[in-house]
Amino acid sequence: MAFLKVVSLEEALKIIDSFPLEPKIEEVPLKEALGRILAEDIASPIDVPPFDRSTVDGFAVISKDTWKASESNPVRLKIIGQINAGDVPKVELNEGTAVEISTGAPLPKNADAVVMVEEVDVEGDEVIIYKPHYPQANVMKRGSDIPKGKVLLKKGTKLGYKDTALLSAVGFSKVKVFKKPKVAVISTGNEIILPGEDLKEGKIYDINGRAITDAVREIGGEAYFLGIAEDDRESMKMKIIEGLNYDIVILSGGASAGVRDLTSSIIEELGEVLIHGIAIQPGKPTIIGRINGKSIFGLPGYPTSCLTNFTLLVAPFLRKLLGLTQEHKKTKKKLAFKVFSVKGRRQFLPVKINGEIAEPILKGSGAVTSFVEADGFIEIPENVEIVEEDEEVEVYLF
Amino acid sequence: MAFLKVVSLEEALKIIDSFPLEPKIEEVPLKEALGRILAEDIASPIDVPPFDRSTVDGFAVISKDTWKASESNPVRLKIIGQINAGDVPKVELNEGTAVEISTGAPLPKNADAVVMVEEVDVEGDEVIIYKPHYPQANVMKRGSDIPKGKVLLKKGTKLGYKDTALLSAVGFSKVKVFKKPKVAVISTGNEIILPGEDLKEGKIYDINGRAITDAVREIGGEAYFLGIAEDDRESMKMKIIEGLNYDIVILSGGASAGVRDLTSSIIEELGEVLIHGIAIQPGKPTIIGRINGKSIFGLPGYPTSCLTNFTLLVAPFLRKLLGLTQEHKKTKKKLAFKVFSVKGRRQFLPVKINGEIAEPILKGSGAVTSFVEADGFIEIPENVEIVEEDEEVEVYLF
Repeated sequence: MAFLKVVSLEEALKIIDSFPLEPKIEEVPLKEALGRILAEDIASPIDVPPFDRSTVDGFAVISKDTWKASESNPVRLKIIGQINAGDVPKVELNEGTAVEISTGAPLPKNADAVVMVEEVDVEGDEVIIYKPHYPQANVMKRGSDIPKGKVLLKKGTKLGYKDTALLSAVGFSKVKVFKKPKVAVISTGNEIILPGEDLKEGKIYDINGRAITDAVREIGGEAYFLGIAEDDRESMKMKIIEGLNYDIVILSGGASAGVRDLTSSIIEELGEVLIHGIAIQPGKPTIIGRINGKSIFGLPGYPTSCLTNFTLLVAPFLRKLLGLTQEHKKTKKKLAFKVFSVKGRRQFLPVKINGEIAEPILKGSGAVTSFVEADGFIEIPENVEIVEEDEEVEVYLF
Repeated sequence: MAFLKVVSLEEALKIIDSFPLEPKIEEVPLKEALGRILAEDIASPIDVPPFDRSTVDGFAVISKDTWKASESNPVRLKIIGQINAGDVPKVELNEGTAVEISTGAPLPKNADAVVMVEEVDVEGDEVIIYKPHYPQANVMKRGSDIPKGKVLLKKGTKLGYKDTALLSAVGFSKVKVFKKPKVAVISTGNEIILPGEDLKEGKIYDINGRAITDAVREIGGEAYFLGIAEDDRESMKMKIIEGLNYDIVILSGGASAGVRDLTSSIIEELGEVLIHGIAIQPGKPTIIGRINGKSIFGLPGYPTSCLTNFTLLVAPFLRKLLGLTQEHKKTKKKLAFKVFSVKGRRQFLPVKINGEIAEPILKGSGAVTSFVEADGFIEIPENVEIVEEDEEVEVYLF
């Protein structure tokens, strides 16, 4: 049974893409919406500003009253009231009158311009204006900033502080976002122990459990590290069953081949193994299955291989489940030095980015330091044996 | 008193920089450390790997035993045991012997190389080897990945998933991070109401409260929006006193000049106003004070002005308090079109970034849409009246 289901990367992605998934929606208060993914298009329910608004401190006027004003022949208007920001205007202007107005206050009826306080003189109940003002001078018209009905944010947007502020500005106190998928993360391998435990002979501390859990959180999912399953059937089966309480289960493999067969055979027992091995380097040991409608991903044990396969296979699935519309980040760089690949093998090589240069990391994917130093990876197709120094490469970013 | 304390931007930053502040430290479990700021340098307490480790499935050998091996004259070694990943090796090799070993398992005593299982034949209790192997072939030496004592992470690092994974790999189950400063955010202005409320005539929805609260959270602080203080002395004083329960208070001003004087006079009553007005455009209405050792920032009411002053003045202070060592992000772009400034006025102009181009936003800082579209701002010094199209400009990113 093992390795009978080896598929190409494209076939693997197609299979994953066929998993039925419907991102769930929940409504959250706006004050808790930062970082969440919008589940609806947002159109403004109001005009912003909702009224003709003064942009300065000064005097609201009928602009026509000022058209003949000049330094030598200023116009005098009678001050008939005052409007502060937040006030409801109770006066209305008639020819020859003005109203004192503060920045942000609504214009009174018939007013169509504001004269800045710095440009006038006041004598008794009269304001003296020295310059003609055109309609809309120092006025922000109702709806000129955001007209009612304008689409402001699209479904699938990850809400940053400017987005939550915009939602506040048009009056939303709550908003529909996609529910965070709940992801269970399990490390496997008899050699793996948890940090904080005594480092006994032959053991190493877990790295993938923490990496995958926190990577899922950075993407926006809710991740729970269920700890380490030992390489025996019962222990691993119990952990996988525990994982089925969540929406997705991600295992990262122990280093040995036996663990992979065990994982695959347990998934086969509880559900279905859809993929056992992907024809890429690294990634051969990757297992993908379904149990009771839940997706199970078994990733390689070596940290860099684990992260590469997570990025290629799991992250796009998670993003879809999260409702995110944005693509995975890629960037074009120049290769630092010539690298060789084996013909007929599709390879993903970790690289470190240094300015415009991508430096291949050749320490081997077993090294923790490769994992830490790598900013992403490049793909070397089956039919390519050599990638030259300075050749342009596309880097998939971690 | 008002505007007696107008200072230059440099003086303002120097005054803020002189505020006594000691970022506080707390220890958190590693599983809650993602996104926190490291408060200590981390050196590895162990060698990684902690033992000489096989990087393949195969047979551990004494390399010298294989030196004469060839296709025509293979070497036969006696298999005297098996070591799996996680095992403590109980056997030791002598001349002419080998041990079956799995990937990740520790080498037995005297072994110094591993022969891959794909490259041998097994007959009974003998392994047949066809190629010479040099010392360390297929072996990852103890400490070769990370030697004990190596400094891995520096104080001030914001922990990403690769950092938490690295901490796990070297055995940390908890880690010292800087405490998040608690920031109170208050909006002021009689015209401002909270989203969700009925939009009565003359009112507009709050934008700065949400923007500042969520911007502080994105930087890594703990922010609490205390709501809106009306433009009366008692209401505003109560809110400021409530804000003093937190480490920092950030007010964003109502649009009118009266509010600024009120804010300043209340701070003067309760503590000390250090800055009242900064000689930049926008930012004239900025107020900075101290009450009982707490810092109070009063920012302009116009959203883009508010955010610009937050970025110039408050964000660096917050970053210092958070223990972050990284600088504010800037980027060099070319200006999309010629802009004019007033001589003698130091201006900060919002811009939108489009590829390598910075497009000035000239809608005025009162517009919500300027705030949303702006990716940052450029500085136009006092002595500059014109910045030409295509001129290189430095953009401070929001």
